[in-house]
Amino acid sequence: MRNEKDSNKTFAPPEGYIEGRNAVTEALRAGRPIDKLFVAKGDADAGLSRIAAMAKSAGIPVVDIDRRKLDTMSVTGAHQGVIAACAVKEYVSVAEILNIAKEKGEDPFIIICDEISDPHNLGAIVRTAEAAGVHGIIIPKRRSAGATATVAKTSAGAVEYMPIARVPNIVSAIEELKKAGVWIYGTAADGASGLWSTDLKGPIALVIGSEGDGMSRLVSENCDFKLSIPMAGKISSLNASCSAAIVIYEAVRQRNQDNKR
Amino acid sequence: MRNEKDSNKTFAPPEGYIEGRNAVTEALRAGRPIDKLFVAKGDADAGLSRIAAMAKSAGIPVVDIDRRKLDTMSVTGAHQGVIAACAVKEYVSVAEILNIAKEKGEDPFIIICDEISDPHNLGAIVRTAEAAGVHGIIIPKRRSAGATATVAKTSAGAVEYMPIARVPNIVSAIEELKKAGVWIYGTAADGASGLWSTDLKGPIALVIGSEGDGMSRLVSENCDFKLSIPMAGKISSLNASCSAAIVIYEAVRQRNQDNKR
Repeated sequence: MRNEKDSNKTFAPPEGYIEGRNAVTEALRAGRPIDKLFVAKGDADAGLSRIAAMAKSAGIPVVDIDRRKLDTMSVTGAHQGVIAACAVKEYVSVAEILNIAKEKGEDPFIIICDEISDPHNLGAIVRTAEAAGVHGIIIPKRRSAGATATVAKTSAGAVEYMPIARVPNIVSAIEELKKAGVWIYGTAADGASGLWSTDLKGPIALVIGSEGDGMSRLVSENCDFKLSIPMAGKISSLNASCSAAIVIYEAVRQRNQDNKR
Repeated sequence: MRNEKDSNKTFAPPEGYIEGRNAVTEALRAGRPIDKLFVAKGDADAGLSRIAAMAKSAGIPVVDIDRRKLDTMSVTGAHQGVIAACAVKEYVSVAEILNIAKEKGEDPFIIICDEISDPHNLGAIVRTAEAAGVHGIIIPKRRSAGATATVAKTSAGAVEYMPIARVPNIVSAIEELKKAGVWIYGTAADGASGLWSTDLKGPIALVIGSEGDGMSRLVSENCDFKLSIPMAGKISSLNASCSAAIVIYEAVRQRNQDNKR
């Protein structure tokens, strides 16, 4: 599915480990290259045995090690008895994301994360996007979490299936999308477009702003529309992954009802 | 708003501290009883000064202390230079939540969190619920995060404005709601009711299941409807706070469009 000859391809820094039962299981299912699987010694429960068996049948060496050793290796602090030492996560280009939509015969449905620095938020967004059938996610190289072990864990393994483009400049990526006919929707407290009255069908990219400051000014200026999520209470903002979930699923609702492609 | 004579009222264990700028600001705005405000010494930025001024004008003692001392006091590890030592968070009863809706002349709109153990998830759900105009949240006494400092911080202060009932038994609370004419909607991967085709207007309570196992069996059996969030990808579940956000805002959408009360 990914074009190996694409010269724009960038690579993530080695993330080293995938941790936790769900994340490791999904990595195995996705056929992700894994160098070695570390399993807590003496833990005879069925879940771990099944993961070890999966790895063995895929020709991956399984190493039983002391649980305390596993604790020391763990980046997330929540390995649940299993860590996979793996190859780097391969990022894709924006063009490849557009191509994935084209190959499926679907209008592009893309998420742009503008400086989401909390890996838990990024992981939750990746998970929601994967469940929603999003074609790809675009993140900036600077001031953003990358596809790290924590993101993989929080995404419950969804990061394995979600093409992610890591770009030097979000505004340039937006321009590339616009040239391909994609409409850009930002989210803002003072957005002019009501979430439910704005057409989210057709080729779209939804921009999710950062936890603290929302979208950066330049990115905001480059949006075609600014959606506002109606707020009835005293607190005027939502957790980034929650507002992403609301906007992504409103798009899914509209696309399911009127755009059966 | 809360009936001080209600004998069913329970109190949270002293949560001690409210941490972080947003959470403390909202606590001050809400007139929450605060014993003392601790501010990092030597931090002269405008945000902290404003919070200290707010506290002083409310007659609350402000103490300048060493940042390292503040680090030691911090439960969340993210105090942002300010910690408020406060009174206990007062829980309400289910009857009081129903009464709040009645006083507003609105159909009850209630969230039931079934064993949400991660305080970050509970905080994000409280924040979304507050923004959505939910009347109250019901949590169980056992196997659930309580309204702790971490929840207050993650909720960005929304926990100050959101009535929370902490009940010994969720099923009994559901029975109480049913007697009051409230319809109970669960969420489940194998739910029979499509999210967008199910009527979420009128008096409703939405049950959000736990991160790992979804709703417990007894709670599930007591739901009038089971909603399923459409999933297009390979991962068949969402982060608890994200699925809560999707379901809560679909209810808001329907209630805004057709039920202008």
